[in-house]
Amino acid sequence: MAKTARLVAQGDEITTGATIDTNSAWLAERLFERGIRVLGTGSAPDDLDLLTRLLLDSSRDCDLVISTGGLGPTTDDVTAEAVAKALGVPLVENAEALEQIRARFRVIGHPMTPSNAKQALLPRGAGLLENPAGTAPGFAVDLGRSRAFFFPGPPHELHVMADRHLFPWLEAQGTAPLLRRRFHVCGVGESVLQDRLADLALPEGVRLGYKTWLPFNTVLLYGEPDAVERLERAAVDVRARVGENLLGEDDETLPQVVGRLLLARGWTMALAESCTAGGASALATEVPGSSAWFKGGVVAYSNEVKTKLLGVPEALLAEHGAVSEQCAGAMAEGARRATGADVGASITGIAGPDGGSPDKPVGLVCFGLALPAETSTRTVRFGIRGRDRVRTMAAATALEWLRRRLAAGSS
Amino acid sequence: MAKTARLVAQGDEITTGATIDTNSAWLAERLFERGIRVLGTGSAPDDLDLLTRLLLDSSRDCDLVISTGGLGPTTDDVTAEAVAKALGVPLVENAEALEQIRARFRVIGHPMTPSNAKQALLPRGAGLLENPAGTAPGFAVDLGRSRAFFFPGPPHELHVMADRHLFPWLEAQGTAPLLRRRFHVCGVGESVLQDRLADLALPEGVRLGYKTWLPFNTVLLYGEPDAVERLERAAVDVRARVGENLLGEDDETLPQVVGRLLLARGWTMALAESCTAGGASALATEVPGSSAWFKGGVVAYSNEVKTKLLGVPEALLAEHGAVSEQCAGAMAEGARRATGADVGASITGIAGPDGGSPDKPVGLVCFGLALPAETSTRTVRFGIRGRDRVRTMAAATALEWLRRRLAAGSS
Repeated sequence: MAKTARLVAQGDEITTGATIDTNSAWLAERLFERGIRVLGTGSAPDDLDLLTRLLLDSSRDCDLVISTGGLGPTTDDVTAEAVAKALGVPLVENAEALEQIRARFRVIGHPMTPSNAKQALLPRGAGLLENPAGTAPGFAVDLGRSRAFFFPGPPHELHVMADRHLFPWLEAQGTAPLLRRRFHVCGVGESVLQDRLADLALPEGVRLGYKTWLPFNTVLLYGEPDAVERLERAAVDVRARVGENLLGEDDETLPQVVGRLLLARGWTMALAESCTAGGASALATEVPGSSAWFKGGVVAYSNEVKTKLLGVPEALLAEHGAVSEQCAGAMAEGARRATGADVGASITGIAGPDGGSPDKPVGLVCFGLALPAETSTRTVRFGIRGRDRVRTMAAATALEWLRRRLAAGSS
Repeated sequence: MAKTARLVAQGDEITTGATIDTNSAWLAERLFERGIRVLGTGSAPDDLDLLTRLLLDSSRDCDLVISTGGLGPTTDDVTAEAVAKALGVPLVENAEALEQIRARFRVIGHPMTPSNAKQALLPRGAGLLENPAGTAPGFAVDLGRSRAFFFPGPPHELHVMADRHLFPWLEAQGTAPLLRRRFHVCGVGESVLQDRLADLALPEGVRLGYKTWLPFNTVLLYGEPDAVERLERAAVDVRARVGENLLGEDDETLPQVVGRLLLARGWTMALAESCTAGGASALATEVPGSSAWFKGGVVAYSNEVKTKLLGVPEALLAEHGAVSEQCAGAMAEGARRATGADVGASITGIAGPDGGSPDKPVGLVCFGLALPAETSTRTVRFGIRGRDRVRTMAAATALEWLRRRLAAGSS
């Protein structure tokens, strides 16, 4: 049974920084979930000697090597050659691989070039791994102490091939995935979250992890395959510590939860956005089927649009300014009125880098929430952390506030 | 002078896939630009033996090793210890480092904990590298064949420290940055773009590269420091081959170019978005100062909003449907009228995964462009490539079409 692994990513695009290697993280997470320890990752440029050395080094101390990239049709791609060199065997044409490449070109309706035939040259003795999503077949060999898998670099091809060839192989080996629970959190920073959970007493066989993906954080609980009940006990504790900042669990996303809570009341929503300029609407509609509860809204970047489309009084703008709770309240009510939605939410703030003042610094954002029975407003200071970050945080905060109000039973 | 380098990233967060290692790509790109060849990258978990071995292996065949991560205050962080072990020297408290850590805590106003004092323990003989952005000091040592730099893992700390300590050291060594020109492209896929440039005859000392960052592609030209004129000659060729798909060069972005072209005419714009639901507006306003030419718009997700706020006739929706060039044209004109902008652009399509039909499959998107003198419409099929991707491509395509029309002198 495979207990340890190393990951290899190949290509000049990695070693010149043209591409960020996301494949290794994707694989590492899935191996971790299966209880396999990754002893390291490595990359090499399109260089036969450097890649051969990396493969030999990587296969010395672990059960499993997984390599991505370098299987393309061009002369740059030397993975098969490096594997043959590491094994001390020749490259031979694999008839089945050649037929799969031909079939693939028939499907996509492009002519097959002579260089594509090169992709059927595999180290002698390699096990062919069919690629249903691209022209480069994968393969597997025994190398050093390891079983070594070679997959293409494009992430969607890797994902399809790992699902088809790698994970079933691991299962057949007796590898049992760890149990996993995920708790998605919004409105509290990573360090505060870690402090809240710092002295949590975890049952045996249960571990805690974190993942930050702006503007959210996820708390992860992993359990050994036999720790079902202990994991549930730990989950109860995590929920209690995270409290009202828990926006969803496992596969749930913020817009999904907002949609579910709205649908439960038969309500629809609309947005009025100034500084986020559509970012909150785009977030709300990330989930398919959102048209059942999201009507749309107004991107009120200029004061003229705030007045014309949302009915924000000019006098209010003159007295309080566009970045004010007064304006946010009027925008939220305007979004409800203009679209006929049951709920209107609004965002108006200073994303920066310019436009701040001592009273209203960059990063200050006002929110409005117009429910059928009442309108409320609030102000959040996101600090000077860059225009993108302020806008991303503000868009999520608007939906998160609505989620919390709906969850708390506001009317 | 440093000619070759290896990069090391440390931490369980890398080897368990909780964090994607973006630092190595950031460093690799900057080393490539300086003519330094990265022979490979590697990572290790928070494990003294594995990290020590990785450091020894990495410093065997190159001039420069750059390590990120593992300098934190907790017991997990073992980089300094591994370096000391690799060098065969003890860890000793660095008085200057301790004073810098104390000073940092005074600045941020938090109490310094005993575990932070651990961060002042450095391998004997290490050169201290001040960290102006965090509590973990960096350091540099001679290791194997290499000068080895150790920086903290948080990207903003790495960037500040590389600017302060690494790049000046490379310059003092005589490393001269390559010349670089960037050509940003929209509306043509990576493979078509590469075909167009495949037989380009490049002058001596000039190289070509590509970078894909959905929904754009960038063509890169690198030149040796003395190839100024040859690089310009190659740039003329690249521009001719890319043609009207060239949206900007070097630091220019699509919204910047759209804004510049609008301001040159004294025009403003507005957007009416259905399937992208604010994504195009958010893209337009990524650039600070966009309020000078972007007025806002309407997120018309429901037909009711298309009718009420944009004045799309109900009869038109009944006859042609919401996803039609007729509707796109009416939405673009409605955006102009509703906001008082000079230009209205619109997007209505089927992002999927559901809602497609044989006539109007998932990925089909209609665009409208209402200029003062005329309204035009077009349809693009983005294919079934996932909801996010269709929406991202559609948002960029709307702005890119406007850019091309403005650049061509449409009125």
